[in-house]
Amino acid sequence: MTVTLDLASDVVALTRALVDLPSESGREGRIADAVETALRGLRHLRVERIGDSVVARTDLGRPERAVIAGHLDTVPAAGNLPSRLHEGRVHGLGACDMKGGVAVALRLAAGVPDPARDLTYVFYECEEVEGDRNGLHRIAAERPALLDADLAVLMEPSEAGVEAGCQGVLTADIVVRGARAHTARAWTGVNAAHLAAPVLQRLADHTPERVVIDGLEYREGLGAVAVRAGVAGNVVPDECVITVNSRFAPSRSPEEAEEYVRRHFPGYEVRVTEVVPGALPGLDRLADLVAALGATPRPKLGWTDVARFAALGTPALNYGPGDPSLAHTAGEYVPVAHLRTCEERLRQWLR
Amino acid sequence: MTVTLDLASDVVALTRALVDLPSESGREGRIADAVETALRGLRHLRVERIGDSVVARTDLGRPERAVIAGHLDTVPAAGNLPSRLHEGRVHGLGACDMKGGVAVALRLAAGVPDPARDLTYVFYECEEVEGDRNGLHRIAAERPALLDADLAVLMEPSEAGVEAGCQGVLTADIVVRGARAHTARAWTGVNAAHLAAPVLQRLADHTPERVVIDGLEYREGLGAVAVRAGVAGNVVPDECVITVNSRFAPSRSPEEAEEYVRRHFPGYEVRVTEVVPGALPGLDRLADLVAALGATPRPKLGWTDVARFAALGTPALNYGPGDPSLAHTAGEYVPVAHLRTCEERLRQWLR
Repeated sequence: MTVTLDLASDVVALTRALVDLPSESGREGRIADAVETALRGLRHLRVERIGDSVVARTDLGRPERAVIAGHLDTVPAAGNLPSRLHEGRVHGLGACDMKGGVAVALRLAAGVPDPARDLTYVFYECEEVEGDRNGLHRIAAERPALLDADLAVLMEPSEAGVEAGCQGVLTADIVVRGARAHTARAWTGVNAAHLAAPVLQRLADHTPERVVIDGLEYREGLGAVAVRAGVAGNVVPDECVITVNSRFAPSRSPEEAEEYVRRHFPGYEVRVTEVVPGALPGLDRLADLVAALGATPRPKLGWTDVARFAALGTPALNYGPGDPSLAHTAGEYVPVAHLRTCEERLRQWLR
Repeated sequence: MTVTLDLASDVVALTRALVDLPSESGREGRIADAVETALRGLRHLRVERIGDSVVARTDLGRPERAVIAGHLDTVPAAGNLPSRLHEGRVHGLGACDMKGGVAVALRLAAGVPDPARDLTYVFYECEEVEGDRNGLHRIAAERPALLDADLAVLMEPSEAGVEAGCQGVLTADIVVRGARAHTARAWTGVNAAHLAAPVLQRLADHTPERVVIDGLEYREGLGAVAVRAGVAGNVVPDECVITVNSRFAPSRSPEEAEEYVRRHFPGYEVRVTEVVPGALPGLDRLADLVAALGATPRPKLGWTDVARFAALGTPALNYGPGDPSLAHTAGEYVPVAHLRTCEERLRQWLR
């Protein structure tokens, strides 16, 4: 049975209703049904369903079109359901990342039937998991015309401020090899864990660069996120793998980012396992939007789906309620004040 | 149905029959039944069963009593069954570790009814697993009088040579702590994997000591056997655990061994998870046996159950067929020449 979402209700009540509709990645069917049904009730929108993503568009012949996008899925629950309103905050799974933002977008979809620019609302699945399951990725691959736009707003939590662009991410394994031996005769082997010391020391000594673009400082990073060595309790390990994670400024290409990491570990086996480009802030093309939102842009340091829009040639920024550092924590919440600010500012921009 | 072991058959045939009786640790019931049944058929032995261990003793009133011991269990099979005789070697699971030695002991039990010294044969379970399941450990705890003896021969593979004493083993975790953070803001955390670099470097730089006892050089060791760090691909790890394995000369007590490791990592959290003492070679009390075996003693570097006899005050040495470095390998084998040498030399000693 499809749950009914009342898009005319207050943004706080709507956020809570969305939180109370569990939608762990891969299980967004019910929430997508509810969103689709609610949007189909609105005459000014053309609604399409792709998997468990929902796209709703105005078609008013305006000279400009904007995307407003938010993902429907959450990480797994952590004892943080149902929703709870306490001291001006909505607590609960996904409240911050990012059902508060989805509620704002749904309120706009229902409450602004005659916007100054044409709008494409995208409510999508599987943002919290592997990139090839991501709903935006799927729409871009299967129905790219649905994403045609002049700019995009991604409702990622950014404390109701503007976070522009995003850094790229590179993950690589540095593989250090030795030779296995029984620890009772350790000198007959070569201990790969011991050989990993200079790699870890080099990471410890590394000073990341700071890159300024459009007046925004992107602070890069390079560090170990995992170290794995070990065969058995009495065996000299013959392999040690150090997984490093690099965050690189959006002005660097993936190739440059890879070269940068390889240059830091000459003579070592470096296996790049993933590299995704960042997104330039593109503030020149987003000036009107930034002005309307009344916020001073900050650089987005984490990777977000704005990079997917950048790859499509669409300038995009992050603008949503909630503190991004609370995302994925059991105690995540979204301040009511953020919900109201975001709804109000976007509504003004759309008028 | 109990398998029949023919103790009158050649040592090679008997080794193969034992290999063909699978006896992974914890599943020694069938082989223990077969050994017990075969030994109960011998009038000169008093046989007792403790779990899946079998003890058989002469009681001839001799002034001296010796233990001859071998474990019945093996590590799990690795596609190396059934046994195979090829170019003077018996191949197959446990051939080296240590069914060849068990076959030699069974041949002596059956073939030397009137030995020059009283004998206690111990065929025991669960040597390859946790120490508290070990059959010798259980007999020492439940029926210590059964192990009373003036000296002991452990049929551990030692290339039909004498390996005296054994080194102690200490295992410890060195825990390095940091502070978790999102890798997009790595500077807000402290990377525990990076802090582990000096620990690994210290292990790399460490020069183990060499300790000479009774003319035998025990070469110590201290090194990492495992390194573990990692929370998630986008998280600065807040903990890195380096597991170190120390092999220490039998002249050091467990307390000294622990102090030695702690001294090398001042200021670090060191959790000792296991420490077992070694066994002094005790060659002064084993001179007659060593002379009879006609081999120049070498130091045993790995830990063996001779340490259990040492803890009971019984000097013991390792003497058995097979190359110890083949133990636990899929390709393990025992040379027929070793089987014959061991049987012959021990038989002479017993006459």
